[in-house]
Amino acid sequence: MRHIVIHIKSLDQRGIISLYTEMLSSLSINILKLEQHVEPDDKLFFMRIEAELLEDKTSIEGLKDHLSKTDSKVDGNSKVFDKQKKQNIAILVTKESLPLYDILIKNQTQEINSNIKTIISNHKVLEPISDQFDIEFRYLDLSDKSYAEKELLSILDQEQIDLIILARYMQIIPDSIVNRYKDRMINIHHGFLPAFKGQKPYHKAWERGVKIIGATSHYVTSELDEGPIISQDVVSVDHHHSIKEMINSGRNLERNVLVNAIKAHLEYRIMTHGRRTIVFNQ
Amino acid sequence: MRHIVIHIKSLDQRGIISLYTEMLSSLSINILKLEQHVEPDDKLFFMRIEAELLEDKTSIEGLKDHLSKTDSKVDGNSKVFDKQKKQNIAILVTKESLPLYDILIKNQTQEINSNIKTIISNHKVLEPISDQFDIEFRYLDLSDKSYAEKELLSILDQEQIDLIILARYMQIIPDSIVNRYKDRMINIHHGFLPAFKGQKPYHKAWERGVKIIGATSHYVTSELDEGPIISQDVVSVDHHHSIKEMINSGRNLERNVLVNAIKAHLEYRIMTHGRRTIVFNQ
Amino acid sequence: MRHIVIHIKSLDQRGIISLYTEMLSSLSINILKLEQHVEPDDKLFFMRIEAELLEDKTSIEGLKDHLSKTDSKVDGNSKVFDKQKKQNIAILVTKESLPLYDILIKNQTQEINSNIKTIISNHKVLEPISDQFDIEFRYLDLSDKSYAEKELLSILDQEQIDLIILARYMQIIPDSIVNRYKDRMINIHHGFLPAFKGQKPYHKAWERGVKIIGATSHYVTSELDEGPIISQDVVSVDHHHSIKEMINSGRNLERNVLVNAIKAHLEYRIMTHGRRTIVFNQ
Amino acid sequence: MRHIVIHIKSLDQRGIISLYTEMLSSLSINILKLEQHVEPDDKLFFMRIEAELLEDKTSIEGLKDHLSKTDSKVDGNSKVFDKQKKQNIAILVTKESLPLYDILIKNQTQEINSNIKTIISNHKVLEPISDQFDIEFRYLDLSDKSYAEKELLSILDQEQIDLIILARYMQIIPDSIVNRYKDRMINIHHGFLPAFKGQKPYHKAWERGVKIIGATSHYVTSELDEGPIISQDVVSVDHHHSIKEMINSGRNLERNVLVNAIKAHLEYRIMTHGRRTIVFNQ
Repeated sequence: MRHIVIHIKSLDQRGIISLYTEMLSSLSINILKLEQHVEPDDKLFFMRIEAELLEDKTSIEGLKDHLSKTDSKVDGNSKVFDKQKKQNIAILVTKESLPLYDILIKNQTQEINSNIKTIISNHKVLEPISDQFDIEFRYLDLSDKSYAEKELLSILDQEQIDLIILARYMQIIPDSIVNRYKDRMINIHHGFLPAFKGQKPYHKAWERGVKIIGATSHYVTSELDEGPIISQDVVSVDHHHSIKEMINSGRNLERNVLVNAIKAHLEYRIMTHGRRTIVFNQ
Repeated sequence: MRHIVIHIKSLDQRGIISLYTEMLSSLSINILKLEQHVEPDDKLFFMRIEAELLEDKTSIEGLKDHLSKTDSKVDGNSKVFDKQKKQNIAILVTKESLPLYDILIKNQTQEINSNIKTIISNHKVLEPISDQFDIEFRYLDLSDKSYAEKELLSILDQEQIDLIILARYMQIIPDSIVNRYKDRMINIHHGFLPAFKGQKPYHKAWERGVKIIGATSHYVTSELDEGPIISQDVVSVDHHHSIKEMINSGRNLERNVLVNAIKAHLEYRIMTHGRRTIVFNQ
Repeated sequence: MRHIVIHIKSLDQRGIISLYTEMLSSLSINILKLEQHVEPDDKLFFMRIEAELLEDKTSIEGLKDHLSKTDSKVDGNSKVFDKQKKQNIAILVTKESLPLYDILIKNQTQEINSNIKTIISNHKVLEPISDQFDIEFRYLDLSDKSYAEKELLSILDQEQIDLIILARYMQIIPDSIVNRYKDRMINIHHGFLPAFKGQKPYHKAWERGVKIIGATSHYVTSELDEGPIISQDVVSVDHHHSIKEMINSGRNLERNVLVNAIKAHLEYRIMTHGRRTIVFNQ
Repeated sequence: MRHIVIHIKSLDQRGIISLYTEMLSSLSINILKLEQHVEPDDKLFFMRIEAELLEDKTSIEGLKDHLSKTDSKVDGNSKVFDKQKKQNIAILVTKESLPLYDILIKNQTQEINSNIKTIISNHKVLEPISDQFDIEFRYLDLSDKSYAEKELLSILDQEQIDLIILARYMQIIPDSIVNRYKDRMINIHHGFLPAFKGQKPYHKAWERGVKIIGATSHYVTSELDEGPIISQDVVSVDHHHSIKEMINSGRNLERNVLVNAIKAHLEYRIMTHGRRTIVFNQ
């Protein structure tokens, strides 16, 4: 028995749920969870199905053939994911320890279920944390940007990285990597996007005198802090909060918001639609 | 075209979504939204379908026949609701004006979509609000409890009340009415259940020194404040909050939580399972 | 016995709390609450004192003299407010009923303690609500802007308005009025400032795919949506929320946030410092 | 220059702030922050002052003498704390790693400013985490309760422990230790007290069908989960959440709530009044 997730995307039309579920039923595939959503602006239908596949009856490849036939009837587009196969992760960091710690701790307790293959950084400050958790640490020298880009690409290749996590990595990612990891690279921004884009969001928040600060995780696109938002959270502040205290309050948000996004991604609960994400519940 | 909602409840089993959606598809019924949930403790399957029914093809009665045949295949239990038919509401109040105002205002702006037939109270304090919104107000004299019970039952009958709302009605409802309005009578409790059941929850909260207070809406059962919870919300308090300030802070919660519950009920988004509710998203 | 509030602002320096409290003590003024705050950027000291003044011992005018002497010792600046004197309010609205309702209801229950002198609008949609609460409604014809400005100024004069509330008034306020009502005109913006300034914030939020929406009340300055923020609140949304549902969710926020700001203002709990507000607790 | 905190508690009376601040001023002590609060039930006055003491002018001992004289005038009770002296901490744990990790991480980043002297546990599961952070781990064998109590007392003595943290320590603390560490032993309860006291709060919450779960940190008293609450936080859940998912959601709360309480305690921001805490802002 294999635990799988299916993503289906097509133009909205009558009978579409019945069409796919009937096909799955004919293959003795047991649906555990089904969620659907229609985006109203361009009438797109999104569906996520979590199911059990009896491998002596159908293989994942066999299912893909059936899905592709169904897709062609409705001009849809399906993907199947093997929920039991762990994804390979690379974490990019600079100096901030808290989000890194949280990912490592929750990977250890299996709340996050993945293979963390490597931690990559342009500084050596966080190397001891890699050591604590016995994960390989690689220092990335950014003095020669084009060399660094090649090196990074080569690490991603070599480690067969499925998901890149920017856990407060304070550098721009080259477009070559952004494009290759479309919807597979997650950043945490320490501000409540779209407010306070770019650098020093807490300083800006303090100066503007906001009463609530936030953190935002999103897929990375070539435009800074403009990718599809996956998760956000906020915390109240008042006039007593210095910038330093805002940073401390924000840190707890950042790590929670980032871990939420990572979990949603690894559980194949996210589908994107332009700058919007559909984040299914379960 | 008629906008309907279908509730399906059965033992969880393979093929169940396909079975119902296929049947609907065969009747040219267009599914707008589908949500399902399995309660893990006794493996019960719950599904809510929102759909458009072409009345020249099928009537609601015709659909009921088909559903009942499908039900018998899986030992299920279905209900169909006409989303376009407004439900009749009776609101019971005592002296607290805010939740009453909110229901009346939101019924007026059609955020709540219902016929408010009557406001019933054991006090006359809120009669002017009924007048403001041109809703009939009935004073219920509780000095003779058994007479009052009969009178209340007769009003509910006469006005064909579908849903009773206890908007801070500070009296016990007789069991005859509780039983008749099972899952159709909603109470707002001004405390974060199951803490602070019964009277004076804010006083108890102040004495216990809690840092967060809450409000809870639930279906009424014969046990005080023990019915299935529909909606809850909370607000932070600190040592500065006097009991009176807690009451003020709590008031905003109460009305929001109550209106949320009413909307979920009127949109047929709630199914119950013992003391738990399944509140569908949409 | 008169209930007063004192605001003190000066450069931060040693002994300042003792200096003022000693003076008050010498006048037999009983301090009920004292809060202070130092803004770190330019070392400004802010203090709010709530106190009881025995009128047979000192008048408010007498206190002002003493304060002014103390001010001169530390180059400070004090103000005294009479907490028992109700402030006169003008509410400006367009078509949105909920924030208006909330102010009127809470003024009626005395949670807001003020004289609402007039409701002014460029539309007649909300006139029936004025009638419900027996408040004078004035229609402001904006076809001749300069005439409308004069008329508005004359109403504010005539009614001796202390505080202007823009309860979703969708028009620009002329600078003449903005300047005159500096720190005495409160707007509610239906977005989480500084994100989504200007018009249609919910549409922008939907398109950007944010997971949390907000509302912001602030003092009005000549720059649109840039005045000092008094209060903010947020609510979570997800992909299911249509723009219309966002608007509905936001409405509850807007009124709460606006009423919070009004209460803080009327209780003399707000001091401003550039674009920042100090909102004292009590 | 020494950074100190003063706690003052007395019956509420006129002139009390002036009396203490004047005395401090006369000793050239610079007040950085002052907060006061009156508990309305028994008219008790609480004040916290954060100040800078010029050690060539006054010693902490000298200040204590002056405070004691002032206390005697108003029948008050003062305490002085040296903010620069790190407190010694013992952490008691069982098997849950997340709160322990969070304390250790935040002590490392100096968000928590203390000497963590020892981690004590009735299991060996968390010993590797002690090793990661180079803190001494002591296994406490509970098979002989009276021996274990003696051993625990002896560790607390030997390490001169100022604060005991129960970071999900699932055992009852003997009264001898509870009494000795009154207002100096903090527990985290994984439920929203006073609801769901005792064991398995998440199971109880699931069965009751609550829509919000919480965590509570409190000082330990001899009555289980009845001590003064320091900090609480909550998170929304819905019917989708299994008990396991509730536990995961709750874990993030627990550690945040516990760390908040620890920080408030170490910064001398907490005063207790029966079952209530006054938690000052700054």
